[in-house]
Amino acid sequence: MNIKKNIFITNDDGIAAKGLHSLIEMARPYGVITVVAPQEPQSGMSSAVTFKKPIRLHEHRREEGVVCYVCTGTPVDCVKVGMSQLFHDQVPDLLLSGINHGSNASAAVLYSGTLGAATEGLLYGIPSIAFSLTTLHNPDADFSASIHYGRMIIEQFFKQPPSSDIFIDINIPELPKEEIRGIRMARQGKGAWIKEFEKRIDPHGVPYYWLTGEFRNDEPHAIDTDVNLLNQQYITIVPHQVDTTHYAELRRLEQIWTFK
Amino acid sequence: MNIKKNIFITNDDGIAAKGLHSLIEMARPYGVITVVAPQEPQSGMSSAVTFKKPIRLHEHRREEGVVCYVCTGTPVDCVKVGMSQLFHDQVPDLLLSGINHGSNASAAVLYSGTLGAATEGLLYGIPSIAFSLTTLHNPDADFSASIHYGRMIIEQFFKQPPSSDIFIDINIPELPKEEIRGIRMARQGKGAWIKEFEKRIDPHGVPYYWLTGEFRNDEPHAIDTDVNLLNQQYITIVPHQVDTTHYAELRRLEQIWTFK
Repeated sequence: MNIKKNIFITNDDGIAAKGLHSLIEMARPYGVITVVAPQEPQSGMSSAVTFKKPIRLHEHRREEGVVCYVCTGTPVDCVKVGMSQLFHDQVPDLLLSGINHGSNASAAVLYSGTLGAATEGLLYGIPSIAFSLTTLHNPDADFSASIHYGRMIIEQFFKQPPSSDIFIDINIPELPKEEIRGIRMARQGKGAWIKEFEKRIDPHGVPYYWLTGEFRNDEPHAIDTDVNLLNQQYITIVPHQVDTTHYAELRRLEQIWTFK
Repeated sequence: MNIKKNIFITNDDGIAAKGLHSLIEMARPYGVITVVAPQEPQSGMSSAVTFKKPIRLHEHRREEGVVCYVCTGTPVDCVKVGMSQLFHDQVPDLLLSGINHGSNASAAVLYSGTLGAATEGLLYGIPSIAFSLTTLHNPDADFSASIHYGRMIIEQFFKQPPSSDIFIDINIPELPKEEIRGIRMARQGKGAWIKEFEKRIDPHGVPYYWLTGEFRNDEPHAIDTDVNLLNQQYITIVPHQVDTTHYAELRRLEQIWTFK
């Protein structure tokens, strides 16, 4: 690890988030860092892109080894505009997204802007890692264990790189370093949110609906899912791909569906 | 097909889109229709959700067998608020999303609000289908072939339902009915967008960036991808799942990555 790497950092909680600055700290020993973070928080933006209106990109601050830009778009826009305007399509050595203030396991993978950005990194051919802490959106969460274990994972990632058709999703329990039981490879658990809206009445008597909800774990007894291992105080690593084709069902339907 | 089905329709182009009304026409023979469509166009919103501010839902119009609501949120918000407030979590017989004004094949799957809504339908346990026409966002596109072939697919879907862990993504070439060569099962092709931004200077001398781009097909010779079959004038059906775990890489990394 003597050669300085070219590292691209982004997140979905925005430029001011503590998790972003913890991720910069985590990555600092490994190379030169370019940050492109959203101007405003972008939680729940998934892989959304902005094309009906333009976006802005401007330099925010600069220090030894780190230059930070803000972008008015989504997390995926940050990756796209950074690759196009700052990296000029030269692929960096690593993209890191996060550290998200909140878990990104199971169905959260679908909605997460943190993972949207890592997926976009993968599409650009960048070795990409998403980091999330299982805090309940505490803006002042303690990221010290994340920095410690995150570096172990980054070093393993560089030493034995994964296949170029995946990114990895890291979730870290919000616990003191010594209470974390280890790091485990995992699969994305099955689950969904239920009881999702609170209906309220505005001062003019008109209803409005606020998204909230409870997580329903559809595999509470599985030993290898991200959610369950996180509950058991493990850090989890899930390798994710872009392709969502269900091949077994493709083969089956090819045989039985006929269109005359 | 004598029993009237309970059908949930949504889209990402918004309540005024011709594609939405073509989808209502397609579905009308099969049952009672509830539409929840975004108030504003929501192309490129992927699986984004709104939780930092409330959303509104109100009735838009009502006619024999069809009631339409508009929602101020994203396509996924439309599915969630519809399920919670209109269906009271009773699973409808079918969710249809679209017909999108534009192709949703290959990497577009990732960004598409049309597919975001169908994925959400799947998470709610609803048999779900996304429809897209390969028009270049023509608001007055011709959906007559879509209605014809769409009904053939819906009938096959009801007759031999697919596995409950997938939704299907239908892409239809923008061609007259007789020029369409048939309907084929396909897989999601590999590809990405390149040359994505046009940099412009505003009247105050400040740059802004507008997302555009060219599609790069990474498998131009594959015989079974959605993009290639569409180019050959076939309608394509791809079964998609929620889980994006890459299992082979999970097993491999479990063996080689060690964290002491």
